[in-house]
Amino acid sequence: MSEEVKLKEQVVEQPDSVTIPPPADDAPYHHIEPFLHLSEQPLFGANKVLLILNQRIDIDLISLCKKCDIIVCADGGANQLYDYFPDEQSRIRYLPCYIVGDFDSLRPQVKSYYESRGCIIIPQSTQYSNDFMKCIYCIQLHYELKNTHWHEMIDTVNGLAELWESIPHSNHEVKLYVLNAIGGRFDQSIQSINQLYILNQSYPNLSLFFITAYDVIFLLKKGENYVTYESRSVFCKEGIPSCGLLPMGDKCVVLNTFGLKYDVREWTSQMLGKVSSSNSISGEDGFIVNCSDDIVMNIEITK
Amino acid sequence: MSEEVKLKEQVVEQPDSVTIPPPADDAPYHHIEPFLHLSEQPLFGANKVLLILNQRIDIDLISLCKKCDIIVCADGGANQLYDYFPDEQSRIRYLPCYIVGDFDSLRPQVKSYYESRGCIIIPQSTQYSNDFMKCIYCIQLHYELKNTHWHEMIDTVNGLAELWESIPHSNHEVKLYVLNAIGGRFDQSIQSINQLYILNQSYPNLSLFFITAYDVIFLLKKGENYVTYESRSVFCKEGIPSCGLLPMGDKCVVLNTFGLKYDVREWTSQMLGKVSSSNSISGEDGFIVNCSDDIVMNIEITK
Repeated sequence: MSEEVKLKEQVVEQPDSVTIPPPADDAPYHHIEPFLHLSEQPLFGANKVLLILNQRIDIDLISLCKKCDIIVCADGGANQLYDYFPDEQSRIRYLPCYIVGDFDSLRPQVKSYYESRGCIIIPQSTQYSNDFMKCIYCIQLHYELKNTHWHEMIDTVNGLAELWESIPHSNHEVKLYVLNAIGGRFDQSIQSINQLYILNQSYPNLSLFFITAYDVIFLLKKGENYVTYESRSVFCKEGIPSCGLLPMGDKCVVLNTFGLKYDVREWTSQMLGKVSSSNSISGEDGFIVNCSDDIVMNIEITK
Repeated sequence: MSEEVKLKEQVVEQPDSVTIPPPADDAPYHHIEPFLHLSEQPLFGANKVLLILNQRIDIDLISLCKKCDIIVCADGGANQLYDYFPDEQSRIRYLPCYIVGDFDSLRPQVKSYYESRGCIIIPQSTQYSNDFMKCIYCIQLHYELKNTHWHEMIDTVNGLAELWESIPHSNHEVKLYVLNAIGGRFDQSIQSINQLYILNQSYPNLSLFFITAYDVIFLLKKGENYVTYESRSVFCKEGIPSCGLLPMGDKCVVLNTFGLKYDVREWTSQMLGKVSSSNSISGEDGFIVNCSDDIVMNIEITK
């Protein structure tokens, strides 16, 4: 066969259950573990942060809190954390480490409750970045300047960004579980996705997972991605879990997948064209996606 | 000043309240009325359809039902309509005209309930289009073949699409209010947006409005868009309503706006770049958006 034969764009239907071997060792790949926060096993090593944005919390918060080292609330996200708990006894067990934002939503009573219990309150009035980005700076500073009193000298306009830009970065790996980034007002959801792409370019040390009541949403990175989990039962009660590959960046994305129900080969995906939605996960403990550019993935959570 | 001076990209902050005159009569524009379904006044003339997809209903359904001529349910959307009502007395007042889909979600009891009350059940087993698209064909056929018994001869695999493609189209104008297209599993939300763009190209006679508990989402079309409403109080309880302009197609979009809080001039918007989110509506009874290509808009609803 001529080497010039163009690889054919196609869809291959797989059985409901397949086992995909890991990528060959000799080529670099991105290893992504989107369900560590649901695993029964303790999460050693990685830095893990729960970031709560302002919207009603409709997931099992407590098991997520237990998996994370610190909780950070963006402005009115603190109201949501406060309101989630029915009583003081449970509320005081899950205190945020930081509350950050312009505080146009934070209720005064919630602010003083958490302040009096030692939470660090960081007002940032600038309108040139949103509360989500302000929290990203705070989280990066937390790991970079650990065991210093860095937060005591923060300017209240845009001090977090200014301090972050003035220090050298050692790029600590952080797994960041974000609640309420997706599913509320649609412009906020899409801005979250925009920032998912942009943050990956600026800070690839951050692994973001947007958690909703329906799914987990994260970025697959240009190149080879090996997505793994102990078993599908970690995130799926019964049947096979749904998923999507969503080309929401500024380019079309050529995809090759191994371990989805409808695997694709040399498949060009783009908005206004073909988008793989309502696909599902066949891989028992993982699957592989090769993509010509960053692409958003979501996987259904049913437990 | 030289005619060659490039128009400058900029953001202009407006007062919270402005009145924008309509576009000049001599140039064509798209007139969009996204809040007719919330207006106190009756909606004469236009064909109005409520399409319910499968997800829990979290808005005031009854006032929306009253504004629409017919209700169409996509598969398990009928379960949601059924479950919305606490008793038979209210349930029987809002019956769907059609239930369409592959029926992998429709509960048998719900199917027989609605069937016995005269609703038209149209099974369509093809997996080459989703339940949303099957309903679009059904709605188009409803207006095209009114007062015939067209639905009695539909093939159960892909008959709706086949019938639609076999007849001439007179392109009836239809306002389509869609529930549960956005806000559930993220791949389904993004596929809905993809179809919003694609349907506008194929069937510009359909005006789609995705309704959520937070906002209404619709397409602004390439060219001049004049978006009007009786007053902001129709959709906003207090303060000024938030909005976003979301370039989710396959191109960047150059924007000029008149009547937003942060109006933009010659502003190039694109994913991975600048996206106007958390903007708001200053126009008392309307605003204008000129765009170099189709773009998604959302406007917050707080009443």
